[in-house]
Amino acid sequence: MKAVRVHEYGKPPTLDDIPDPVVQGPLDVIVKVDAAGVCRTDLHIIEGQWADKSGVELPYVIGHENAGTVQEVGAAVSTVAPGDKVILHPLVTCGLCRACRAGDDVHCADSRFPGIDTDGGMAEYLRTSVRSIVKLDDGLAPADVAALADAGLTAYHAVRKAVPLLHPADRVVMIGAGGLGHIGLQCLVAMTPSRVTVVDRSQEVLDKALALGAHATVLSDGSQVEQVLEQTGGEGAQVVLDFVGENGTEADGVAMTRNSGSYFVIGYGGTIDVPTIDVISREINIVGNLVGSYNDLADLMELAAQGRVRLATQQYSLNDALTALDDLDGGRVPGGRAILTS
Amino acid sequence: MKAVRVHEYGKPPTLDDIPDPVVQGPLDVIVKVDAAGVCRTDLHIIEGQWADKSGVELPYVIGHENAGTVQEVGAAVSTVAPGDKVILHPLVTCGLCRACRAGDDVHCADSRFPGIDTDGGMAEYLRTSVRSIVKLDDGLAPADVAALADAGLTAYHAVRKAVPLLHPADRVVMIGAGGLGHIGLQCLVAMTPSRVTVVDRSQEVLDKALALGAHATVLSDGSQVEQVLEQTGGEGAQVVLDFVGENGTEADGVAMTRNSGSYFVIGYGGTIDVPTIDVISREINIVGNLVGSYNDLADLMELAAQGRVRLATQQYSLNDALTALDDLDGGRVPGGRAILTS
Amino acid sequence: MKAVRVHEYGKPPTLDDIPDPVVQGPLDVIVKVDAAGVCRTDLHIIEGQWADKSGVELPYVIGHENAGTVQEVGAAVSTVAPGDKVILHPLVTCGLCRACRAGDDVHCADSRFPGIDTDGGMAEYLRTSVRSIVKLDDGLAPADVAALADAGLTAYHAVRKAVPLLHPADRVVMIGAGGLGHIGLQCLVAMTPSRVTVVDRSQEVLDKALALGAHATVLSDGSQVEQVLEQTGGEGAQVVLDFVGENGTEADGVAMTRNSGSYFVIGYGGTIDVPTIDVISREINIVGNLVGSYNDLADLMELAAQGRVRLATQQYSLNDALTALDDLDGGRVPGGRAILTS
Amino acid sequence: MKAVRVHEYGKPPTLDDIPDPVVQGPLDVIVKVDAAGVCRTDLHIIEGQWADKSGVELPYVIGHENAGTVQEVGAAVSTVAPGDKVILHPLVTCGLCRACRAGDDVHCADSRFPGIDTDGGMAEYLRTSVRSIVKLDDGLAPADVAALADAGLTAYHAVRKAVPLLHPADRVVMIGAGGLGHIGLQCLVAMTPSRVTVVDRSQEVLDKALALGAHATVLSDGSQVEQVLEQTGGEGAQVVLDFVGENGTEADGVAMTRNSGSYFVIGYGGTIDVPTIDVISREINIVGNLVGSYNDLADLMELAAQGRVRLATQQYSLNDALTALDDLDGGRVPGGRAILTS
Repeated sequence: MKAVRVHEYGKPPTLDDIPDPVVQGPLDVIVKVDAAGVCRTDLHIIEGQWADKSGVELPYVIGHENAGTVQEVGAAVSTVAPGDKVILHPLVTCGLCRACRAGDDVHCADSRFPGIDTDGGMAEYLRTSVRSIVKLDDGLAPADVAALADAGLTAYHAVRKAVPLLHPADRVVMIGAGGLGHIGLQCLVAMTPSRVTVVDRSQEVLDKALALGAHATVLSDGSQVEQVLEQTGGEGAQVVLDFVGENGTEADGVAMTRNSGSYFVIGYGGTIDVPTIDVISREINIVGNLVGSYNDLADLMELAAQGRVRLATQQYSLNDALTALDDLDGGRVPGGRAILTS
Repeated sequence: MKAVRVHEYGKPPTLDDIPDPVVQGPLDVIVKVDAAGVCRTDLHIIEGQWADKSGVELPYVIGHENAGTVQEVGAAVSTVAPGDKVILHPLVTCGLCRACRAGDDVHCADSRFPGIDTDGGMAEYLRTSVRSIVKLDDGLAPADVAALADAGLTAYHAVRKAVPLLHPADRVVMIGAGGLGHIGLQCLVAMTPSRVTVVDRSQEVLDKALALGAHATVLSDGSQVEQVLEQTGGEGAQVVLDFVGENGTEADGVAMTRNSGSYFVIGYGGTIDVPTIDVISREINIVGNLVGSYNDLADLMELAAQGRVRLATQQYSLNDALTALDDLDGGRVPGGRAILTS
Repeated sequence: MKAVRVHEYGKPPTLDDIPDPVVQGPLDVIVKVDAAGVCRTDLHIIEGQWADKSGVELPYVIGHENAGTVQEVGAAVSTVAPGDKVILHPLVTCGLCRACRAGDDVHCADSRFPGIDTDGGMAEYLRTSVRSIVKLDDGLAPADVAALADAGLTAYHAVRKAVPLLHPADRVVMIGAGGLGHIGLQCLVAMTPSRVTVVDRSQEVLDKALALGAHATVLSDGSQVEQVLEQTGGEGAQVVLDFVGENGTEADGVAMTRNSGSYFVIGYGGTIDVPTIDVISREINIVGNLVGSYNDLADLMELAAQGRVRLATQQYSLNDALTALDDLDGGRVPGGRAILTS
Repeated sequence: MKAVRVHEYGKPPTLDDIPDPVVQGPLDVIVKVDAAGVCRTDLHIIEGQWADKSGVELPYVIGHENAGTVQEVGAAVSTVAPGDKVILHPLVTCGLCRACRAGDDVHCADSRFPGIDTDGGMAEYLRTSVRSIVKLDDGLAPADVAALADAGLTAYHAVRKAVPLLHPADRVVMIGAGGLGHIGLQCLVAMTPSRVTVVDRSQEVLDKALALGAHATVLSDGSQVEQVLEQTGGEGAQVVLDFVGENGTEADGVAMTRNSGSYFVIGYGGTIDVPTIDVISREINIVGNLVGSYNDLADLMELAAQGRVRLATQQYSLNDALTALDDLDGGRVPGGRAILTS
């Protein structure tokens, strides 16, 4: 089959012809990849930023946002069958550890992450486990939802964690309403009754946010903290969701959080630097967020099926994968998420 | 002032001329009642059904859903001032007991309930406590929201308790979408992402429910349990909200609840009769719901201010209070809730 | 191997010689049963009470509280190995359904229950799944903990659900401190700071409860509700755990529950019969409890390893299984739980 | 009356003769201060560290951990009476704001803090509000519990927040088991079933911790993180409670926290400095903790009444207040907390 493989960090991947994956264990599932999201993390992998963290052996196939059609299943698989349209949870988890048993499968003690630490989905076929398979509603096409498998899942997961904290009279602030953020915004509007303020550096992004249901917007022009405090009677927001996590949003986010409120870290790259006296005198929470569980993905697919979460996509054929990566790197995917289809 | 007073159970109340209430304690507030909801509970009080439970001494002023304008405040009141437009939490609570301190003021150890156990709001003026005063948003008129003070609050409170239990892939069933229920439905749509099935005996009510955002409806024609199970893959709903609580909905509600799900009792009149083996083998919860807290009412007013909860009303002048009670008793308030204005 | 099998309902089971179970699927585990608890449910099975509910085909091996030593494992099993000392979660669950994924494996959509609906553990060997295996701490012997696999797990699970509801100033009431209950009491003492009142019909049981850490006892002599109310300032308990669930404890339990408190149903046999007006006017919760999750069992084993939950046992050899069943039926296992060892 | 007042920052306070406080408002309560805790915060106030933060006008009376006897009550006070033995919640709160109504009175929108921003309790009498009064159990003397009013309350509050996160199989780590910490340890032992590891720089403190029920200890000798990881299978603890919050414990605490676990900040002085990628890739929570609610204090008094939380004290007469402050400053209160009695 054709597959996009990284051979050497710092150099472009190549479209190789390699053997199709085959069922190896009783719970394995081979999926024909109909759609694979192209993500900034792929660029970072190619640059070598993940080399140490993943420890993956080169060459290997990238692609961690995958949806497609079940092709073949292992001997012990009975819940999915060839022909099923599916989206793949990004992790292959064990199902047996304490975390998996508690519904927190992202923290599985024995997981793999196809596209990161083993062969992924920028290829015609992918081997995964039955544990990672979410069946798609008839109304959903793989190409429409593939990019929800990782980025979208992360945004949903964070918003769902915030739900019990948010009442109608509360305010929630989102920093960054681009890729991740605009999914988070749709989730907020679908799942909470609080007024949403969106903070972003781009007026265009803010305009789109209003169209998606944001109640207020704030342009990041240096006065963003001040403006949020003004909108909230000087108190800040009950929940701040930071989809950026670098370039100063870390400090902004803490400053925008009201006493006994929560600052959710979703994006990353920067550093949180906060005196313990501020953490205790304001009794704030700093809340990490990582991907989401299998059930979270099933829930997100339900929101997608209801049309409450939509993703703008720009499609490329698998053969044009390198162009897609190049376009993403060069800022030429303004219409939404790049998706490889085959 | 004019006031609607019950003099003898079983006889119609009369519109009396009585002295205006005056500030007695430092936290007292006198409110000019601009709007008072007329409720089935008022009919039950007049019939004498509440005589033992309330122990109120006759004659007294009924009316427990009140909104209006602050007229005068006690010496220690600083958070509201004459002229403020307000809605009144139905209970006057102590603020000092463990329940009040835990945000559960409905279970205050030392509360009064104007209109039930002390003089209420079907009058020109009402004495309450500063603790019961919720200021209204500029966009809200007392006559629009008065009926949310008790019925609406109860519906909101139950829905808010259900929020953490409901995910996009879950189903919620509402039994009864009339007075209480149609507010509950608006709250469900505003606060949860789950699909809502509305069960009612009236096709007209079901049609209105669809317009308010229900995802499916079931006519109570004897097959309602079967239909709900069919809609939910034979499993039942994660949460069933029963706004009726009598005439068989008690058994229906339990039967419609999925294993490890919750049956919320909101309406009343009937009896729950369920073998303990069913409660344990299905691990279901039966959840009582009573009014709502002060903060719940503030949250509901926020939903009203945003236009997400609206109430159809039929207005009467205070002078026509007996007509309003009579119309309610005779089923002649089809357009919504009867409201006395002055 | 030898195995205790039911051949006909209403007749005593027999000790048969049958083929050893063998690994059939990749996740199967064959366990040498070192200890099997003998439980009242076994008597009910023999009587035929479970015939319809389980639908099991006769003859089959009973025994649903099992601990022992891993004998052989399927091809895909890597987390346990022959020789491991283990206790078995009573259910064999799928690990793939929404409930399993949410940590609520008791409500697995595709589970089996060895000893109830398939061959159980009153035998030399048992086939189960790797998903059901909890490894034992070195300090724990199978015979000491086998009876915790079902009865103990149920008690632990209910107490753990009550933990977030209980503060030092709260009161918790337990009805029944016999088999299930005395484990529940040990869990309460280990996990909550609330004062515990134990209600039982036997003074001997109450004396033992005091020794295990109960703060107060009430003899069920007809005045038990009154006594509990007296102990709680007339208000009742925040949580009532009913380990009996029949013979009037259902009504007692509701009456002993304070407003906005919770009545936990654990034992069964009777019927809850409560007007909806009582459920709402007191805003109480009725909470079902069923077995416990795999993680619950792991937690309970930790309490056992720490010596905080201990079980008195009376051991019989597997050959004497019929005697053990007979003794249990005749009330001749006063020293604790009957355990078959081999 | 006699009162310890600060006249100039950087200089010792003096024991002045000033007028007794009098009832000013209807909810005021005058308390005869039988016992006032002497705390490091008092030293910091004298040094001027709180000058800007509190904005208090000099001279004023310090002392924020107070217990005593009700002397006189305002006109609207009915729940306490002269002669009642009481402990005072450190904050005087409004009872009307959203936070107070939600049971989160520490974040009251309109509070005062006697001893910090208004006259406190190192005096014969103190004016407070009925809202701050917790009545003492007959078995508790003001001098035994005064120091629980602030330090103890903070420790209790943090532990209570951790309770729902802690299962028997979880590990909890405490950093610092001195003043605050040794109360926290007693709360942990009373309220959770998890194994507790105590980390401290003093072997003497660790020895005392073992006597109070700690399951393991780690001497802070540079290898403390490594040792905690070793005790927890390389994973770290579900909850880390940091009673120090400076001198490197901030980084240690984060490093000792397992993935998806929580690092509770209680002590302060240092700075948390953590890359956002660590917060998200490990999905950890950083949780601020500030004092505790009124109900928390009532709960802590219940633990004290049961003898489950005890405090070693060293008593001084009010006349010797300056000696007590000096002893504290010079490290000469090794036997526990210094208490002024009168």
